[in-house]
Order: sequence, then C-alpha cells, then structure tokens
Amino acid sequence: MNKPIGVIDSGVGGLTVAHEIMRQLPNEKLIYVGDTKRCPYGSRPRKEVISYTLEMVNFLLQKDIKMIVIACNTATAFTLKILQQKLLIPVIGVIQSGARAAINVTNTNHIAVIGTEGTIKSSAYQNALTNINQRIHVTPLACPLFVPMVEKGIFTGNQATSIVTDCLNPLKGQRDLDTLILGCTHYPLIEKTIQHVMGQHVQLVSSSEETARETSVILDVYQMMNKVTQNQSHEFYTTGNLNIFKQISHTLFNEEIDNLKTVTIEKVALS
Amino acid sequence: MNKPIGVIDSGVGGLTVAHEIMRQLPNEKLIYVGDTKRCPYGSRPRKEVISYTLEMVNFLLQKDIKMIVIACNTATAFTLKILQQKLLIPVIGVIQSGARAAINVTNTNHIAVIGTEGTIKSSAYQNALTNINQRIHVTPLACPLFVPMVEKGIFTGNQATSIVTDCLNPLKGQRDLDTLILGCTHYPLIEKTIQHVMGQHVQLVSSSEETARETSVILDVYQMMNKVTQNQSHEFYTTGNLNIFKQISHTLFNEEIDNLKTVTIEKVALS
Repeated sequence: MNKPIGVIDSGVGGLTVAHEIMRQLPNEKLIYVGDTKRCPYGSRPRKEVISYTLEMVNFLLQKDIKMIVIACNTATAFTLKILQQKLLIPVIGVIQSGARAAINVTNTNHIAVIGTEGTIKSSAYQNALTNINQRIHVTPLACPLFVPMVEKGIFTGNQATSIVTDCLNPLKGQRDLDTLILGCTHYPLIEKTIQHVMGQHVQLVSSSEETARETSVILDVYQMMNKVTQNQSHEFYTTGNLNIFKQISHTLFNEEIDNLKTVTIEKVALS
Repeated sequence: MNKPIGVIDSGVGGLTVAHEIMRQLPNEKLIYVGDTKRCPYGSRPRKEVISYTLEMVNFLLQKDIKMIVIACNTATAFTLKILQQKLLIPVIGVIQSGARAAINVTNTNHIAVIGTEGTIKSSAYQNALTNINQRIHVTPLACPLFVPMVEKGIFTGNQATSIVTDCLNPLKGQRDLDTLILGCTHYPLIEKTIQHVMGQHVQLVSSSEETARETSVILDVYQMMNKVTQNQSHEFYTTGNLNIFKQISHTLFNEEIDNLKTVTIEKVALS
C-alpha cells in the first residue's frame, strides 16, 4: 500500500525512530512532525501532552497516512491507548516495543530503564515490563542531563563520558543486571558512550530500533506493506527551529534532509 | 484475554518456539500440536502440507484458541497466507519474523539463511527478505544433516562440531556476511555449536525467539494479552511417538512436560 507512515515526536529525538524505519523499511514513505517549539513534553501536564499530540495526529490524518508511530516516550505514555481507540488506522508507540525487546534478550530478568524524569516518573516502562512478566525486576533511572547534552551535539569524547558515567553510576553495582533500555529517543545518539560506560556484559536495547521493527510487523499483519521500491521523498515538518533539525539529521543520516519545512503551531492545530 | 494460544508444528522443532513464548509471555497458556507421525513436512508436496496443517488448525479451533503460531518453516511457507485469509483470529509464522529480525541486525545487508532443503528450495526466506528490502544480498544454504543430528540428541561435542563445520563451510568465505538466520526450528538446539563454527562476528538470528516476540506484538495490537499471572497448564499433543517429545522437551525445559498426550491423526483430521 503506497500511503505514507506518519511519525510524531515532541522534537528531534524521534528522528532516530524515523531513521531506523527508513533503514529497515526502505520501500516506505514517511511524514514526520516534530513539535520542536513546544518541546520538551516530559515536564508538561498529561492533558497538555494529549492535546498537543492530537494536534499533530490531525495534521497527519489530512495527509492520508496508513499508520501512526508515536516516536516520543512521554506522548506514548499518555496517548497511545486513546489513539488506538480513536483511530481506524494502526497506532504504535515506543514503550511497549522497548519492553518486549528487553524481555527477549534478558537472561537474568533484571532490566534497567533510563529515560527523562517524565518518562521514569510515569512508570510506563515499569508497567509495560511487569504487565508482560511479573517476575521481571526493573531498575528505573532518570538521566535529566542526557537530552540537553545531545541537543548540544555532544555524543562522544571526555565530556560525554564524564556526564554519562556520573548519571549511570547507580546502575554500576546492580546485581545480575544484564539489559538496559534506552527509554528516550535521544539516547541512541550516545549509545556508544553508554555501552562503553556500562561494559559489554550489559545489552543495550534501543526503543527506536525496536519500534521500527514492530512497524514492520504491523504493516505485515494489516497487509499494508509497500512492496514497490521507489525513490522515496520523505517529508519532515517542525513547528520550531530548523537548525537543530538540520544538525541532528545530518548526524543521523549523514546528509541534509531535503523536504524539511516549518509548520506553524496554528496550522498543526487547525488541520 | 484468558484463552490459549495454539502452536502447530510438523513435529518437535516447534517446541523451541513454544519454549520461547513460555519464557517471554509467562501469563499465556499454550496448546501445542506436533504432527510427529507425518514429520518431516519438508519433502512433502505443497497440497499435502496444506491439508495436514489445516487438520491441526481445525483440532485447535475446537479448543477456543485466540491466535495461531505456525512454528514450522515448511508449513509457514505453504499455508500462512491461506490461514490469514481463512481465519478470524490472528495467525503468524516463523519466516517473516526471522527475516525482519535479520534486517534489523545486519549492517552489511548480506544475510545468510540455513534451513532444510524444502525451506531453502521454497525461497520463502529469500522472498521475505527482498520483499522488505531489495538491496539485501541473501546467501541460502540447505543443511540436510542438522535435523537428523538434533533428533538423535546430538547438540554439542566433536561430532556436532564436525558436521556443522562441514555443512557451513560454503558460508565461511562469504564477503561481508554478518548475519545468519537459523531458518529451522530445530537449529536453536545447536545454536552454540553454530556460533562457535561461524565465529563471533556473525550474528545468529533465531526464528523461534523472534516469533515469540512477534506473538507478543500481535497480542498487544489485538488487545488480547493475558495480564493475569496464573499457574499455567500448557497442553501438548503429538500424533506420534512420545519418546522424542519427552527427550527434546527435557533438553529445552529442563523438566518433563506434564500435560503430554498422544492424539491420533484421525482425531486431528476429524476435529
């Protein structure tokens, strides 16, 4: 089915999800909306996050998408069930896919999850993990310094290692811990530094990567996969500053995004 | 939803899938049917495989299952689309999940797949991979000696290493090969030997493990997951000899299966 997949995020972090979908499903066209102007969502009230997310969804529905991927942990925590009940097209988020992948790889049943303060406080990962398996021992840890660091373009090097080492220190002595969920879409950008700090015996699970794979499962189940290879022209919209978008996309894609447009919040809201 | 999941296989290989579902989804109850008497399916005509598989499905449908997992590569190749169109409950197989997982982990886009002669000749994995991404380079290899070896209970040791080394020899010189799909449900039982022979630079993808994870995705999407932990009483049926069932299950589960019953082919066919 030659319709696009809609990807929504509070800002640029979801580009890691978009990038993975483009890598794993090269026949699919994406339309991405990042609400950069109102980012971050992590500290906003639930009602506000729901309202902003619905505005982005409405904007995308005008573009005849076949599926929605909520590429933002906070938005997933607050709106996934609402959107699944409200919409006729399939909707997936980043939390359940990260939880499932972690349960798949753990041998000890001791899983840590790192995320923004909002995500960790919502207990969404903790609930997703124990809903599937009550015997899973979850160690949650908020890492409030990671997103600002990534948004400054600092991914590796001494400063990154120092910040990551300090933040992850509470996990270092954890007994039997063998799996760490990167519970924020910004974190795959500092994956190498996190792996270095945690050591090779801890397996990192990237929600971004896993969400892309589950997108593939859903398209298959609903028989909506695009089997024709074509020169895809993805579209990217941001409600805010183009510069951070350009910088992160350059890091991820190794090239500039062609179809990058700003869209006003009013237009998102009214669409 | 407190209904069981049905798992069908031509014999005992599918127990690796059942074992993974039990591990990843401990709240779910399974009913397994292995058509051991008419195993292997690999060399049988397509029409016969379809007919036998439908008999097992009919047997399971009487038991009010909520989903079917085809834990057999040959049966998946020949019946997945038919069953998906015919039944009102979701149906998944082992081939697409293995293909998706391999596309997820490969960096070089060069993926090898090993399986029985029937599976490799059907090109089902090759098609599943290139349907998703036409740039994937697939190296298929039939390993006809692996299933008889596993069924004799030989998993590791000199003899296993020797047979596996000989069979996998054509893959050893393959340029850029970084991912190997275990395209037969028997192969996870000799995974350690295969990894040793191929070396650590080749990532093994187990269809069994990945199918269990996709079962979780499907239950979630259809909101059919059982969230109540209870003392599960799985049921296992075989049309043939109980001994091989007991041996393999002992290896996999480290204990005897409690609810193991024989069922006649006539009963499977008539149900």
